[in-house]
Amino acid sequence: MEEKKKLTLAQQTAEMVEWLASFGGSESGGVTRLLYSESWKLAQEALKARMEEASLHAYYDDAGNLFGRLEGSEKEGRAILTGSHIDTVVNGGKYDGAYGIIAGFLALKYLSEHYGRPKKTIEVVSLCEEEGSRFPMTYWGSGSITGLRSLDDVYVLKDQEGTSFIEAMEKSGFGKGKYQLPGSAHFDCFIELHIEQGEVLERENKSIGVVSHIVGQRRYNVTVNGESNHAGTTPMKWRKDAMNTASALIQVLMEKSKRMPADLVVTVGQMIVEPNIPNVIPNKVTFSIDIRHSDSDIIQSFCQEAFESFEGLARERGTSLDIHKWMDEHPIKMCENLNELSTTILQTEGTSFKEMTSGAGHDSQVFGQFIPTSLLFVPSHKGISHSPHEFTKTEDLEKGINLLIKILHKLAY
Amino acid sequence: MEEKKKLTLAQQTAEMVEWLASFGGSESGGVTRLLYSESWKLAQEALKARMEEASLHAYYDDAGNLFGRLEGSEKEGRAILTGSHIDTVVNGGKYDGAYGIIAGFLALKYLSEHYGRPKKTIEVVSLCEEEGSRFPMTYWGSGSITGLRSLDDVYVLKDQEGTSFIEAMEKSGFGKGKYQLPGSAHFDCFIELHIEQGEVLERENKSIGVVSHIVGQRRYNVTVNGESNHAGTTPMKWRKDAMNTASALIQVLMEKSKRMPADLVVTVGQMIVEPNIPNVIPNKVTFSIDIRHSDSDIIQSFCQEAFESFEGLARERGTSLDIHKWMDEHPIKMCENLNELSTTILQTEGTSFKEMTSGAGHDSQVFGQFIPTSLLFVPSHKGISHSPHEFTKTEDLEKGINLLIKILHKLAY
Repeated sequence: MEEKKKLTLAQQTAEMVEWLASFGGSESGGVTRLLYSESWKLAQEALKARMEEASLHAYYDDAGNLFGRLEGSEKEGRAILTGSHIDTVVNGGKYDGAYGIIAGFLALKYLSEHYGRPKKTIEVVSLCEEEGSRFPMTYWGSGSITGLRSLDDVYVLKDQEGTSFIEAMEKSGFGKGKYQLPGSAHFDCFIELHIEQGEVLERENKSIGVVSHIVGQRRYNVTVNGESNHAGTTPMKWRKDAMNTASALIQVLMEKSKRMPADLVVTVGQMIVEPNIPNVIPNKVTFSIDIRHSDSDIIQSFCQEAFESFEGLARERGTSLDIHKWMDEHPIKMCENLNELSTTILQTEGTSFKEMTSGAGHDSQVFGQFIPTSLLFVPSHKGISHSPHEFTKTEDLEKGINLLIKILHKLAY
Repeated sequence: MEEKKKLTLAQQTAEMVEWLASFGGSESGGVTRLLYSESWKLAQEALKARMEEASLHAYYDDAGNLFGRLEGSEKEGRAILTGSHIDTVVNGGKYDGAYGIIAGFLALKYLSEHYGRPKKTIEVVSLCEEEGSRFPMTYWGSGSITGLRSLDDVYVLKDQEGTSFIEAMEKSGFGKGKYQLPGSAHFDCFIELHIEQGEVLERENKSIGVVSHIVGQRRYNVTVNGESNHAGTTPMKWRKDAMNTASALIQVLMEKSKRMPADLVVTVGQMIVEPNIPNVIPNKVTFSIDIRHSDSDIIQSFCQEAFESFEGLARERGTSLDIHKWMDEHPIKMCENLNELSTTILQTEGTSFKEMTSGAGHDSQVFGQFIPTSLLFVPSHKGISHSPHEFTKTEDLEKGINLLIKILHKLAY
C-alpha cells in the first residue's frame, strides 16, 4: 500500500491496464473475457477486492455488474455513475471497455484521496457485458440496469458450445435474485470514457473526443435473384446475372455516399454468391449494407433514394430484389450540459479536443436513452480495435482520467 | 434382333438415350458416370457389346476410349471418326456427351444396314473422359488420342477420395499397355454431334447449329487488396475498401462488354470476401473473370482496355490489385469444308440451321488442333445442361443423326 500511493496517476494507469489485461490475457497480448467465463469472474472479483482496498463500497447486481460506491454526504439524490464494460471480444485488446472502468476507479480513488468525501455519491461500474461475443445479444450490462434488457431476452440464448445463458449466469453466481438490480432511477447521470476505435483523433492530433451523438445505424441484407447459366453459351443480352446487378447496386451506394454529409458511412462488408463457380453465371448474390449517421432523416433519405434506383437497375438486368432490414438503431444524443462542462474544462486547461460523433455503439447509447449521458474518447493508435494491437499511449489515457476527475469534482463536490 | 430392326430411327434414338442413361442413372433422373468408375465401366462394356451386335469391330485403346469400326473397302487411307464422351458431371443429364456417341453408333448402323460396306473406314468413338469431374484434368479421351495429353499429365492426379488416377485407370483395366493408342494420325477427320448447352437454337427456332469456331477463353483471378477497418468509425475518405473497388471493376467489365461484339461474353462467377462481416470494411476481395470470344484479338483488346482502367480505379480507392491469368485457351476454327458439306445438305433438305460459335469447350476443340473437325449442335431445352433437367426432343436428336448419316455417306461411300 505504501508503495502504491507513491505512484503517479500515469504510473497507476499503466499498471492497472496491464493488471486488468492479465485476466484472460494470452501470450500474443490479446485478451479474452467472455461474459460469465472463468477469466471474466476472476477479473470482476479482483476488481471488487481492489475497490474495497480503496475504501469504496463494492457490490454486485443480479446481472453481474460490479459497482464501487464513494458515498456522498447528502443522503438524498441519485448517484453519479461512471465506468464501462469488463467483457471483451475473443482475442481483443487491453483498452476497449477496460479503460472506462480503470478511469472511473482511478478518478474515484484520486478524488477520495485528495478531496475526501463528496457531497453527491459517485459510483464506478464494471458492466458485465457489452460486446455480444459469447451470446448473440449486446448491452446486457447497461441493458439490465436501465431495464432495456430483461431475463425474458436471454432465456433462449445459447453460446457456441450450447451452454444456455441462464446456466452460465447461474454458474457464475448471478441471476438467482441474490443481488438486487439497482435500476437507472438509482442514477443521476452516466459518464463513459472509451478509446475512439477510429483514427480521427490521432490523425487530427487531438487528445479528447467529446461525443455529441452516437450514430444511428441501419443494417440490411439485399438479395439479388437472377438465373444460373453457362458462362460460355449464354449471350450477354439474355443473362439474368445477379453479380452484375449486385456490383451496380454497390456502386450506387458508394457514389451516392459522396453526395451526402461527409460523416455518413456506408459499408458492404459481406457478400454471399451462389453457386460461386467461375464459369457459372450467379443466380443469387446476397450482400449486407451498414449505414450510419447521427441524423435519422439523413439515413432515411439516403436509403430511400438508393433503394428507389436499385429497383430499376435490377429490372434492367433481368433480376429481382429482396431488401431485408434487420437493424434500425436510432441516433442517441449525448447530454449537452455535460459536454459543455467537459469543453469548458478542456479549454481552460488548454487540452486539444474535437466534438465528434461515435460511429460505434457503446453502453452510453443505452444509458443515453434514460439519463443524461456523456461519452468521451481518447485516441486509438491507427484506429485498431478488437485486436491485440489495440493501443493508446499512457499519456492519452491520463488526459482522459484527469478530465473525468475534474468533471466529477465539479458535479459531486 | 427382329424386334429392334423394325424400330424407326427416332424410336431407336429414344430407346438408346434411356438405355445409356441407365448406367449411372439415379432416381431423380440424373446420370453420374465418372471416369473409370463402376458405372462408367459398365456403360463402356455395354456399348462394346452393342457395337459387336451391330457387326462393328469394337476395341479399346489404352486410355479406355472405346471404338466401333465399320471397315471400308479401301485398305489405304485413314478412318473418319465420329462420337463424343461417355463420362458425365456428378448428377448430369442424359444427353451431354452421350448423344454424340448414340448419333455416331446409329449412323454407322444405318449406313451399314442401308448401304453396306463403305469405301472409307468409319469409326464411332466413346471417349473415356471430357468433363474433368473426377480428376482435375479435362479432355483425357481426345487428349490421349491426339497426344495433347500423356501419362505424364496424370501421375500426380488424385480424386476427392484420394484415389490416384493411375490406380483408378489400372483397376478399370487400362493404362497397362494391354491396348494400343491409335493416335490422331490414324484418323482423317472428326465429326461431333452435341447438345448446344445454350438456348440460342431453341429461341431462334433452328434445328441444327453449325459451329464455325469454338471460342477462346481466358480466366483470371483479380485480388483487390485494401484495409480492414471499423464500419462505424472510419470516415469514407480514409477507407481502403476492397469491396468498393471490386464492384467498380466488375461494372467496368459489364459496361465495356456492351461496346464489344455481341458474342463476347464476360462472367464474374466467383467472389471471396475477407473477412466477410457486415460491420467490417473488407480488406481483400478476390473475384474470377471468364472471358470468351471466337477471335483472340478481341479477347486481348478487351482485357487490355479493361485492365488499364482497373489500375486507376483501384488507386483512387486506396487499394492495389493482383491480376492472375490462370487459363488462356485460343479459339479453335472448325473445318470450313466439312461445314460447307453440312450446310449444303441442310439447305437441300430444307432443315433450318444457324452458323454459330460454341461458347463451351468440347472434344472437337482438341481434335480441331490436329485434324479437320466439325462440331454440330442440336437444341437444348432452355439451355439447361449438367443437370437432370437437360432435355432435347427426340425429333431434334433425329435431325442431327440424319445429318450425320448424310455427311458420312457423302464422305465414305
